[in-house]
Amino acid sequence: MELEEKFVNRENIYDGKVLNVVKDTVLLPNGKEAVREFCLHIGAVAVLPLLDDGTVIMERQFRYAHGDVLLEIPAGKLDFPDEDKLLAAKRELREETGALAKRWTDLGMLVPSPAIISEKIQLFLAEGITFTETEPDEDEFIDVERIPLSELYGMAIRGEIPDAKTQVCVLRAWAVKNGLK
Amino acid sequence: MELEEKFVNRENIYDGKVLNVVKDTVLLPNGKEAVREFCLHIGAVAVLPLLDDGTVIMERQFRYAHGDVLLEIPAGKLDFPDEDKLLAAKRELREETGALAKRWTDLGMLVPSPAIISEKIQLFLAEGITFTETEPDEDEFIDVERIPLSELYGMAIRGEIPDAKTQVCVLRAWAVKNGLK
Repeated sequence: MELEEKFVNRENIYDGKVLNVVKDTVLLPNGKEAVREFCLHIGAVAVLPLLDDGTVIMERQFRYAHGDVLLEIPAGKLDFPDEDKLLAAKRELREETGALAKRWTDLGMLVPSPAIISEKIQLFLAEGITFTETEPDEDEFIDVERIPLSELYGMAIRGEIPDAKTQVCVLRAWAVKNGLK
Repeated sequence: MELEEKFVNRENIYDGKVLNVVKDTVLLPNGKEAVREFCLHIGAVAVLPLLDDGTVIMERQFRYAHGDVLLEIPAGKLDFPDEDKLLAAKRELREETGALAKRWTDLGMLVPSPAIISEKIQLFLAEGITFTETEPDEDEFIDVERIPLSELYGMAIRGEIPDAKTQVCVLRAWAVKNGLK
């Protein structure tokens, strides 16, 4: 079946501080027109930093859109559209946790919400970690703690890690470290 | 550390067909004001329908915001805010694939993009499947196919399933069926 939708025109709805909302008219495969409203996103990286003792550097952060504190791995947006994903991941990890990593493993790409945001998140496993100083944003409130990967894996399996990038990275990193294929 | 941000006021930015964008002013833990732009979402359900022969009913759908066809499990939005998640999952599965399931397992809740959308997706594993008629939306173009769960698991481990809800459901369903804890 022909599935592709073709661009007809774009209306810029909102160009905010973090959100950039557009409304495109598209041509459906059956020749009819339809409207696609979505958020443009520059792209992001997320890192599961695994220490030699088997613990992971995790963050707890209040997510206003959900009214709740979520347990997440370090992550952040790209600084510019074609930024090297690995360099961005190294920057975000260092700024948020003060960690430097010797070994990096690509854990693939995640599309968190395909109908609503163009966001793609590149996932990494970081190992061989040493620490330097953090560069916290004074308006960012993040609790950093260490949790064993084995404990995080159990939490993911029991459905106790709601954040998508975090749950995927934990399940994938566990598979990598345990030789699952 | 105190992490919570408190509501001060809301500006309605855009009330579209699928997107509802708001801009809230909030009080940070340090007493300063900040702005939170995000999309309100009614909530969604996603279902991994596992047939007795070990295959899963999968969908390929063009996702305009990504300019690409993605491999996904059946999913859809709630019809109203307090809709029963299991009933919504049964409806979406039947409408999109014609499948009815005898056994349902809750696979937990997913927050796809915590900074940008209030969306929560309730995940289910559906088994004991029989078929009735589909009720396709004439403006929805979806290719339905069956793929073995073992093959999907390999794809997820190799980072070949970008869609978050799909990757999480495949990894979780594999764990459930293989007794991993």
